[in-house]
Amino acid sequence: MPFPPLNPDFAARVRESFARQSAMRLIGATLTDVAPGAVTVELPTRDDLTQQHKYVHGGIVGMIADSAGGYAAFTLMPADASVLTVEYKINMLAPAAGERLLARGIVLKPGRTLSIVRADVFGVTAGSEKLVATMQQTLMVMHGMPDEARL
Amino acid sequence: MPFPPLNPDFAARVRESFARQSAMRLIGATLTDVAPGAVTVELPTRDDLTQQHKYVHGGIVGMIADSAGGYAAFTLMPADASVLTVEYKINMLAPAAGERLLARGIVLKPGRTLSIVRADVFGVTAGSEKLVATMQQTLMVMHGMPDEARL
Amino acid sequence: MPFPPLNPDFAARVRESFARQSAMRLIGATLTDVAPGAVTVELPTRDDLTQQHKYVHGGIVGMIADSAGGYAAFTLMPADASVLTVEYKINMLAPAAGERLLARGIVLKPGRTLSIVRADVFGVTAGSEKLVATMQQTLMVMHGMPDEARL
Amino acid sequence: MPFPPLNPDFAARVRESFARQSAMRLIGATLTDVAPGAVTVELPTRDDLTQQHKYVHGGIVGMIADSAGGYAAFTLMPADASVLTVEYKINMLAPAAGERLLARGIVLKPGRTLSIVRADVFGVTAGSEKLVATMQQTLMVMHGMPDEARL
Repeated sequence: MPFPPLNPDFAARVRESFARQSAMRLIGATLTDVAPGAVTVELPTRDDLTQQHKYVHGGIVGMIADSAGGYAAFTLMPADASVLTVEYKINMLAPAAGERLLARGIVLKPGRTLSIVRADVFGVTAGSEKLVATMQQTLMVMHGMPDEARL
Repeated sequence: MPFPPLNPDFAARVRESFARQSAMRLIGATLTDVAPGAVTVELPTRDDLTQQHKYVHGGIVGMIADSAGGYAAFTLMPADASVLTVEYKINMLAPAAGERLLARGIVLKPGRTLSIVRADVFGVTAGSEKLVATMQQTLMVMHGMPDEARL
Repeated sequence: MPFPPLNPDFAARVRESFARQSAMRLIGATLTDVAPGAVTVELPTRDDLTQQHKYVHGGIVGMIADSAGGYAAFTLMPADASVLTVEYKINMLAPAAGERLLARGIVLKPGRTLSIVRADVFGVTAGSEKLVATMQQTLMVMHGMPDEARL
Repeated sequence: MPFPPLNPDFAARVRESFARQSAMRLIGATLTDVAPGAVTVELPTRDDLTQQHKYVHGGIVGMIADSAGGYAAFTLMPADASVLTVEYKINMLAPAAGERLLARGIVLKPGRTLSIVRADVFGVTAGSEKLVATMQQTLMVMHGMPDEARL
């Protein structure tokens, strides 16, 4: 474990926060693994998530990467903080196809104020994974800001 | 008009392509203005588009910015080409709130192979606009690839 | 003036700080305009700044964009703070050629902790300007950290 | 070796091209490892490469990352092509300090037209490495364009 969590209840907090994200429910994304500094979001592909060529929309690929990355950072934040996306940059490497997509966020550097994260998105077909996108992201630690609050 | 369109039917083509994006229907986004090198996407805010703090999810802000930017580039492409997002980078400037969001894509440089685009996203409340995000994006011209095709 | 400066001596502070950047001296870059939220860096082109095709190296284009953007943000910071680049993203739009390059940084959103900035780089030939690169950048306000200090 | 080189003389070509980059000479950067899809650039730190806090200037960190990434992509290109940076995005993770910096570029996806690359920059002190920056980059394959040509 490269980065020890500051909050022993990090996993429960991440799951509660994710459950409050209506947008993840709308697209059918779920949290799978939650470890210190590493979170995976899974998205079964559906026709109503597609762009004009019937691949998953690049913006939706960005959505699950943003969530996986943001929650990866959140696992390492103190109990009284919430997480805010400052910016992200995503490269599309291949059409987003497969039975489902997996977005894996991993913290590169946690910080008192900012955390830097990478997320890779894979398309999964018959158990085989293909990298479809990679993202680099900056997140802000909002100290003294409960995750439930309207900012 | 800084960039003349290569295809006189650019507006109809953009509207047909946008209509094939199921993901835009899912979130309730519509195309408003379509001009050479400039496209606006409108998104009424809804509770099922939000993150844990009840603002519109940053990934959804990215989705409409990606679509507005991609279609802005598409207005300047030849009739036999389709458009592909290579990458985008988005900074979140303020919580995405308001009655609706407007994503305005504008081409900075159209190219034979690549186009560079900016998109700004505004939150609109009682007729007043506030900048909530700004995106820089690279798109690829896929020559000889009809927009309807599966790539 | 969209953003009022917090420090009336902002221009002198920016010029002193720039003068301490040995790297700017190495490449021959100078500060020209310094206004609240807007700074211009000028770079006469030289053969020892080039890449293999004899245009100015993309990394040097990034250097002057980074400096112009960072100092644009710095003009709006309080007197006891220094500025730190969190990240930048730059698109190259045309080969960096001309008699000199101008990098113009402009603050999109100043903040207590983070500032978001854009910088455009132009190649100037016989008085005519051509956009060669555009950058989006995030900077951090380091409160209580004198600009002269080793961090 | 995940990606086989198309040009058996890739290493000599990369070294010749790097030698033509005057800007690398100016800052004192050298090529160390050149393997298919992976290139390392080394930069001894010097006082004339610094910013106001006497760390290596963020733009120079970007320069060596850009070169390492670009040449990593170039190792996999055909013999008649040259390489062009489309864009890069770099996050600064720690002050760029140490006896020397190492920028390691690695190809994530080579393509016929575009290649996607990552580069990490490390500060080296007494044989120990610290990650100081990470970059995501898009490069274009310029077919039929000798590396020696003015584009």
